[in-house]
Amino acid sequence: MPDRIARKTGASAPVGVFDSGVGGLTVLRALAGALPAEDFVYLGDTARLPYGTKSPESIRRYALQAASLLAARGVKCLVVACNTASAVALEDLAREFAPLPVLGVVEPGARAAARASRSGRIGVIGTQSAVASGAYQAAIRAARPGAEVVARACPLFVPLAEEGWTDPSDEVVRLVARRYLAPLAASRIDTLVLGCTHYPLLGEAIAAELPGVALVDSAGAIAGEVRERLGAVPGPGGAHRFYVTDTPERFLAVAGRFLGRPVPSAEHVDV
Amino acid sequence: MPDRIARKTGASAPVGVFDSGVGGLTVLRALAGALPAEDFVYLGDTARLPYGTKSPESIRRYALQAASLLAARGVKCLVVACNTASAVALEDLAREFAPLPVLGVVEPGARAAARASRSGRIGVIGTQSAVASGAYQAAIRAARPGAEVVARACPLFVPLAEEGWTDPSDEVVRLVARRYLAPLAASRIDTLVLGCTHYPLLGEAIAAELPGVALVDSAGAIAGEVRERLGAVPGPGGAHRFYVTDTPERFLAVAGRFLGRPVPSAEHVDV
Repeated sequence: MPDRIARKTGASAPVGVFDSGVGGLTVLRALAGALPAEDFVYLGDTARLPYGTKSPESIRRYALQAASLLAARGVKCLVVACNTASAVALEDLAREFAPLPVLGVVEPGARAAARASRSGRIGVIGTQSAVASGAYQAAIRAARPGAEVVARACPLFVPLAEEGWTDPSDEVVRLVARRYLAPLAASRIDTLVLGCTHYPLLGEAIAAELPGVALVDSAGAIAGEVRERLGAVPGPGGAHRFYVTDTPERFLAVAGRFLGRPVPSAEHVDV
Repeated sequence: MPDRIARKTGASAPVGVFDSGVGGLTVLRALAGALPAEDFVYLGDTARLPYGTKSPESIRRYALQAASLLAARGVKCLVVACNTASAVALEDLAREFAPLPVLGVVEPGARAAARASRSGRIGVIGTQSAVASGAYQAAIRAARPGAEVVARACPLFVPLAEEGWTDPSDEVVRLVARRYLAPLAASRIDTLVLGCTHYPLLGEAIAAELPGVALVDSAGAIAGEVRERLGAVPGPGGAHRFYVTDTPERFLAVAGRFLGRPVPSAEHVDV
């Protein structure tokens, strides 16, 4: 691990968290749990979501623009909560915003999966663009040479989670999960990376189709790594601010389901 | 009906067709069937799709930018194939691009439904933003005073159609259609407007849940109105050009399913 970075730009500066929409709130929830005294600034690029069906070129352009908005708010580090942006644009972001530390969810998730697996047969599910990028597959093989990685895009999972259809006893949820996950079950993986911030909401339904398989949520993995880098600051609960690139109404309507508590307000910013 | 408009900017100029992505190809298919000798220029705003979950402000901004790209290509009229953009931004587009004729799918669809219904109980399904705008509801009531209109957003239908899960015997398709449409069946509608360009792909599954209900596809309705305004030009088959705002790969991969024939190439344009 590099030196603690908090001092470089002031320990009291907020941590920036960036996502294409609401999904990154599952990452913010884990970060705030690990670092309760930190201030956080969250940006959801809701005017242009989803990223997971867009080209690498568009994802890079959007991620750079969105990150600029957070950088302008004086964040002391930037967490890329969106798996698709982490998979496609992390190097571009790190180069553009150096020396600001830029941390994505792919490598922590891949490392956690490499540690969790006994057999070395590891599955990854994510958006079409995240899976097509091969970033998770490469990161898992780097963390565990010789690992067999099976990756699969699950495009219906995001709209299911946004619609609130996540109950594992819901027949639609069960059938969609089975259709996507049957090939992974047949591959006898023992560990599965939930490579999209929406997927933890479907965790029970996913687990039901893959009995005995360890599920790795990148949110928990990156929260641990950020805590290790920043160091835990003692103090009262930190402040959380929310920005979105579309108008806030729809974000606010579903945000609570992802953050685990209501989001009272969010501010519009133009990109 | 106003005067024929073809002469105003040259009969040989192409017809512009605009959509947020691939769905508008179902409209282009109907237009080309009704006007086989016309040239068409199609623009899919794939870098920013979907529109149906975005705010009216963002939809208006995107629609104006996208329409500018078509106007710059010298189109003789502009067909807004996207129901969401038609519902939210048609007046803005007509004002901005006057005297260029701008035609949306909402009013033709509403008029066709008003004609088709015997009981006056009419259903509309569409995206969240299209339904929230109330545009279809108002247009149906304008075309048929006293009509009872029941509207419902069906957010899962678009991802189902894009995933290619449209077979009415597919259990997932059947269950999702039933969940969304049961309240409409209970309202004893006799006519349903498919108020999103993706929905005709799910037409059989929708019909199976609403026996005896007439389905109105706005694509057919607007094709008839455009033909009436332009007049049928005799001649050989027209040329079709395709533009997209994201890179073309994913558009080309699914376009054939919507157009009913392969789309060999599409050109990227920046917005």
